[in-house]
Amino acid sequence: MIRGIFPPITTPFSNEEITFDKLKENILRWNKTGLSGYVVMGSNGESAFLTREEKIKLVEKVKKYSASEKTIIAGTGSDSVKETISLSNDAAKAGADYALILTPSFYQSQMKHKELIDYFSKVADKIKIPLLIYNVPKFTNVNISAGTVAKLAEHENITGIKNSSENIADLTEIISVVPNNFSVLVGTASVLYPGLTVGAKGGILALANAIPEECVDLYGLFIKEDFISSLKIQQRLVKPNKAVTASFGVPGLKAIMDLQGYYGGPVRSPLQNLNQDEINIIKKIFMEANLIK
Amino acid sequence: MIRGIFPPITTPFSNEEITFDKLKENILRWNKTGLSGYVVMGSNGESAFLTREEKIKLVEKVKKYSASEKTIIAGTGSDSVKETISLSNDAAKAGADYALILTPSFYQSQMKHKELIDYFSKVADKIKIPLLIYNVPKFTNVNISAGTVAKLAEHENITGIKNSSENIADLTEIISVVPNNFSVLVGTASVLYPGLTVGAKGGILALANAIPEECVDLYGLFIKEDFISSLKIQQRLVKPNKAVTASFGVPGLKAIMDLQGYYGGPVRSPLQNLNQDEINIIKKIFMEANLIK
Amino acid sequence: MIRGIFPPITTPFSNEEITFDKLKENILRWNKTGLSGYVVMGSNGESAFLTREEKIKLVEKVKKYSASEKTIIAGTGSDSVKETISLSNDAAKAGADYALILTPSFYQSQMKHKELIDYFSKVADKIKIPLLIYNVPKFTNVNISAGTVAKLAEHENITGIKNSSENIADLTEIISVVPNNFSVLVGTASVLYPGLTVGAKGGILALANAIPEECVDLYGLFIKEDFISSLKIQQRLVKPNKAVTASFGVPGLKAIMDLQGYYGGPVRSPLQNLNQDEINIIKKIFMEANLIK
Amino acid sequence: MIRGIFPPITTPFSNEEITFDKLKENILRWNKTGLSGYVVMGSNGESAFLTREEKIKLVEKVKKYSASEKTIIAGTGSDSVKETISLSNDAAKAGADYALILTPSFYQSQMKHKELIDYFSKVADKIKIPLLIYNVPKFTNVNISAGTVAKLAEHENITGIKNSSENIADLTEIISVVPNNFSVLVGTASVLYPGLTVGAKGGILALANAIPEECVDLYGLFIKEDFISSLKIQQRLVKPNKAVTASFGVPGLKAIMDLQGYYGGPVRSPLQNLNQDEINIIKKIFMEANLIK
Repeated sequence: MIRGIFPPITTPFSNEEITFDKLKENILRWNKTGLSGYVVMGSNGESAFLTREEKIKLVEKVKKYSASEKTIIAGTGSDSVKETISLSNDAAKAGADYALILTPSFYQSQMKHKELIDYFSKVADKIKIPLLIYNVPKFTNVNISAGTVAKLAEHENITGIKNSSENIADLTEIISVVPNNFSVLVGTASVLYPGLTVGAKGGILALANAIPEECVDLYGLFIKEDFISSLKIQQRLVKPNKAVTASFGVPGLKAIMDLQGYYGGPVRSPLQNLNQDEINIIKKIFMEANLIK
Repeated sequence: MIRGIFPPITTPFSNEEITFDKLKENILRWNKTGLSGYVVMGSNGESAFLTREEKIKLVEKVKKYSASEKTIIAGTGSDSVKETISLSNDAAKAGADYALILTPSFYQSQMKHKELIDYFSKVADKIKIPLLIYNVPKFTNVNISAGTVAKLAEHENITGIKNSSENIADLTEIISVVPNNFSVLVGTASVLYPGLTVGAKGGILALANAIPEECVDLYGLFIKEDFISSLKIQQRLVKPNKAVTASFGVPGLKAIMDLQGYYGGPVRSPLQNLNQDEINIIKKIFMEANLIK
Repeated sequence: MIRGIFPPITTPFSNEEITFDKLKENILRWNKTGLSGYVVMGSNGESAFLTREEKIKLVEKVKKYSASEKTIIAGTGSDSVKETISLSNDAAKAGADYALILTPSFYQSQMKHKELIDYFSKVADKIKIPLLIYNVPKFTNVNISAGTVAKLAEHENITGIKNSSENIADLTEIISVVPNNFSVLVGTASVLYPGLTVGAKGGILALANAIPEECVDLYGLFIKEDFISSLKIQQRLVKPNKAVTASFGVPGLKAIMDLQGYYGGPVRSPLQNLNQDEINIIKKIFMEANLIK
Repeated sequence: MIRGIFPPITTPFSNEEITFDKLKENILRWNKTGLSGYVVMGSNGESAFLTREEKIKLVEKVKKYSASEKTIIAGTGSDSVKETISLSNDAAKAGADYALILTPSFYQSQMKHKELIDYFSKVADKIKIPLLIYNVPKFTNVNISAGTVAKLAEHENITGIKNSSENIADLTEIISVVPNNFSVLVGTASVLYPGLTVGAKGGILALANAIPEECVDLYGLFIKEDFISSLKIQQRLVKPNKAVTASFGVPGLKAIMDLQGYYGGPVRSPLQNLNQDEINIIKKIFMEANLIK
């Protein structure tokens, strides 16, 4: 069962190509933290800009550099059932332990209960590693309902969900209708603490790329029932989290990683790197939260 | 300082006119519960359909029937600064202890930091009872930011906020930037528990009209640090809460009040009462949650 | 039957109070143009900030200063059926020829066919001047359907609609289902020409406050079937129209009126006046469109 | 230069696989109409569910079956610059005359002017057939601005845009800022007529799959300046168009194709076919518009 804190790792580029050396450096450093594992090709991985070949190679390299106890989750979903199965199984061969599968979203207004049941069941039937549902309305404009999750949780190969909505009511409802061994993970650091209080098992958090220790501490203090200390960290994370998600996105996250001594580096085209003014804004937000010096 | 659970009370109508007898019956029954007080002319009070004269009379009657220890909060906001001040002061004379003031919203895309600071400061300067900010994006399409709340919290006559968004990240951020004696209240029962975990002082909850005991219990168990029991109630409330807010609104809430032995009665035109099929749906949701028999 | 071009006139303020002298100056100048009349207390009239007394006085003064052939339309709608009837009839006594009534909007997600039929029928039954429906989704978040308009058009006292959506498909559908003597008016200058091509009878246009001649010309050329010249004006209006609606709103419109020699003046609190940088942006847009020198 | 009416052709499936025989039947029949050509792998082609191999084969077959004078436009865009170039060039080899390229959309809130200029410029530099921009906010949640289109229109290999928004103000603004030989096409049949009146050169219309004659007639009558007859067809198309787009989508369009004697057939998973009740609703809408018997 999936527990704890995972970064949806950024993909390091140099001159528009993946730089595996920098990937290695980042992972070796993350290996020393209490992170439970890595999500590769998540929304912060600029997966939408990668070719199929790059994706497989990326999983291989992440597996290679990861400490053996770290769980590898690969984002392998697309609207096509066929392609999702094929990519998930190739990712499994390359070392992925779980497949994190986006709700299909092109025909967003039609992705309702029946369509989502159909999609996830067909994919889960055919992939050789366990499936985690990935619900992220801000990118997909689809929000899976608790009733749909409850039904999908009956499938033996569907073992959890990453819910990236900040809506804790939905999270509470989902947790109340799935079995206890179904992993419900928070998808954004701004609601990790309240998510844990309603029963989430951990989080997949963009911020954990840049400040893994604080994210792991928040989680660990909660597990030890030191709620006051855990909440204090949470309060410091809300505004910085907004900066690397809603306000500045992946370019913001990479800028903060650079400031923290990780390799953030440039984003891939067509995303645009932050300018110095923007970097200063984001830096100030992290300094005011005592997250960087 | 405002704490605990308040229902935003429904306004009882009969033949399109307010029936004060039924109001009295409801309040006498609510007086026996652990509710901290009553919000009159909130969103569930069909305040938008009331004339000015009806509003003042309603406050007078609520004050008259309420047990002496109950706090009376009156919803008195509109886009007009002048009218908001005037109505708030008349409500104060009629017995209101606090004025709950909506963010202005007609020019919704322009209601930013400066506009909201200007509005609430001018109103707070001139009203004779403490002001609670009322943030309810689903009706106003305006979402006040934590930064704006922090600034407004400096005003000596602005003493709290009801935040009806389900976004707990915003709530967490607000709580982290206001003084400890500033009352932050959850505005919807679906996130009462996670709201309390991040520091909210209570809630103004539509559901508390129909099932005040469960709402008060959830709060009381939390205060006693019986988190598991408190969360169990929370889990039962999410789906019923959706039924009386997003799905069926005030007509749904009134239908459930009727089923619980309170006077819900008909909504005022142009709102439409539920038909029997809709009542059955909502009844089933409440029965499955063990909230009615 | 309503035809031609109307400005939803701005309300002139000085030190937060209405200045009727400036209102008179503006109207005397507009009287000399081909405008068909005036809309008072429309969305651009900051009606949401006016008291009931101010509204009635405003209608009286507009009637007094208007040339006799100009039609006076008063915006008198609110969510309350009672108050809408009462204000409309008082506006009629004060000189209004038509009442322009907003879709009710507080309970926006519930304002569907039955609710809107109920509301407009009850209001139309009791008001003593003809009713024009006012559909403006950007302020109300309610979009009346063609089917609902078709039903309402059967009421003998409902004689037209101002549709402020830029969606010409909706306008086309509405025109195809109402009788020929039902006045369908475009509500924004960016789609006046295409609106006329699908059968609209004219427009109520914020821009007509500042540049009435161009708006009247566009309309007149279309009526004379000089489509090419009419379209050329239309093309020049799109970007300036966006500036005084979506981008800068009423503060932008008043700034342009000032530049054109009308009295725009300050907006009422809580709206905020433009700063000089913003005025320069808007001025540049109007200069590039050859609308001001 | 692209002119006239194109259907974004549906992809015929049988048992979840493409049936090229049925594709041939449809095309042979469309060849006899006044359609200007075919869009393959557009939004109505369920392109999101096709593998790369299927896409290339589809272009080959469409080219093979098409009458020689028909223009072939292939939808080849994705968020990845690399993959978009590669697929476009393979489609060109397979017979495509133009590449219709979606705005990138995964990081929707960040796809602004600079990002879009970067993306389309890089793609246009490298593809061997002319590029048409494809703007379809209802699927991408990105709306390209007139200013961005104006800049892109300077690129010698970017020759037009399909704008599927119903917002005619945007269309008017785009047409006013691009050169005369830049093809601006309407993307939905509900606004074909008003789009033509403001200068569009034609349309890519889902409805043209099922009722090509009416779409071609509307266009032809407009070109002959028989505006009244053209508008009459337009009025009949609005509601049916809504049925095969907003209400029922591709499953609705395929159902109507079946009723018209084309092969619509089943949609691919995870889309779901209409049930008989839904087919009856859509049938009624088309019968009331005199589009089917």
